[in-house]
Amino acid sequence: MSLVLDPAAQDLLFREARTANTFTDEPVTDEQVQAIYDLVKYGPTAFNQTPLRITLVRSSEARERLIPHMSGGNQAKTASAPLVAILSADNEFHEELPTLLPAMPQIKDLFFAERPAREGSAAFNAALQAAYFIVGIRAAGLAAGPMTGYDAEGVRKEFLDDDHTPLMVVNIGKPGEDAFRPRSPRLGFDEVVTTV
Amino acid sequence: MSLVLDPAAQDLLFREARTANTFTDEPVTDEQVQAIYDLVKYGPTAFNQTPLRITLVRSSEARERLIPHMSGGNQAKTASAPLVAILSADNEFHEELPTLLPAMPQIKDLFFAERPAREGSAAFNAALQAAYFIVGIRAAGLAAGPMTGYDAEGVRKEFLDDDHTPLMVVNIGKPGEDAFRPRSPRLGFDEVVTTV
Repeated sequence: MSLVLDPAAQDLLFREARTANTFTDEPVTDEQVQAIYDLVKYGPTAFNQTPLRITLVRSSEARERLIPHMSGGNQAKTASAPLVAILSADNEFHEELPTLLPAMPQIKDLFFAERPAREGSAAFNAALQAAYFIVGIRAAGLAAGPMTGYDAEGVRKEFLDDDHTPLMVVNIGKPGEDAFRPRSPRLGFDEVVTTV
Repeated sequence: MSLVLDPAAQDLLFREARTANTFTDEPVTDEQVQAIYDLVKYGPTAFNQTPLRITLVRSSEARERLIPHMSGGNQAKTASAPLVAILSADNEFHEELPTLLPAMPQIKDLFFAERPAREGSAAFNAALQAAYFIVGIRAAGLAAGPMTGYDAEGVRKEFLDDDHTPLMVVNIGKPGEDAFRPRSPRLGFDEVVTTV
């Protein structure tokens, strides 16, 4: 028993949690999304920059605009999920640093004066937060269906602006019929971990 | 109560979990690292590519080689943590895809024949896995001290090879005296989430 997290929580978040490919029509409420955010917002990022931004696609009009930008195999999932979220990185996150990192006012200009540095840092740290968000969806008893198969430039132009880079589109809901593919293998500890 | 994860687990993983800057000398065992890996290996990645690789810095000789590559403020933490892990992305992860994704043998050549495509995908998906790993460290009742302030090229040359890109160095252990800075603010829901 090397973990202190209780086994039911281990199962909920990792062991039994699976990427869902179909969903029931049970709605995902704003209260659920708020609770997920209020939990995972505490996940660590470098200099507390928290560059993840979330666009909830709720209206059928917006859903219709999103679907053509998804890859073929992802269109039906995107059409049927009760809620779809576009996750993006805010490349102008440094504007919030005086609020987010009041103890280190020098960081904004020291590391993030240039856009390429911001883009690299935003992409990495928003990816960390995307993973926390997936864990949070599962913490709400919901299934996540994260997708990277879509036209990123198309999604950016349709829903975001030049300052935001799409990272992932996530279907969210209760799993439907035949929601899960067979669990794929994972690499063994010795294939991943080296000790020096 | 929009979350089904029990409140103690919420606290352990997110609400009360904090980045530690000092550590006790209680060792982190191989069994703990194995348990963490065996939990978080199930976190989702695109096409199950799981490109994260972990280098555990256990010997004092290796620790001495790592410290000079850390930024000034991170050197003392890296020197004192019971265990330090270098997280990297394997840019040749596609070689494992026949094992990891047996149902889709075409993906390896379709998307990952070229190194730049692999590097982009590995960086993003290994970042997701780095976040799962941080959550897993907390699930083991330990504190993580993730650091991005280091000389990446120096660490790569010292510990890795041309096929691996360092992502993060993580101190792992039980928090010591004055381990935590005050909790920094987080952005509000309405600053992060837009509904369309």
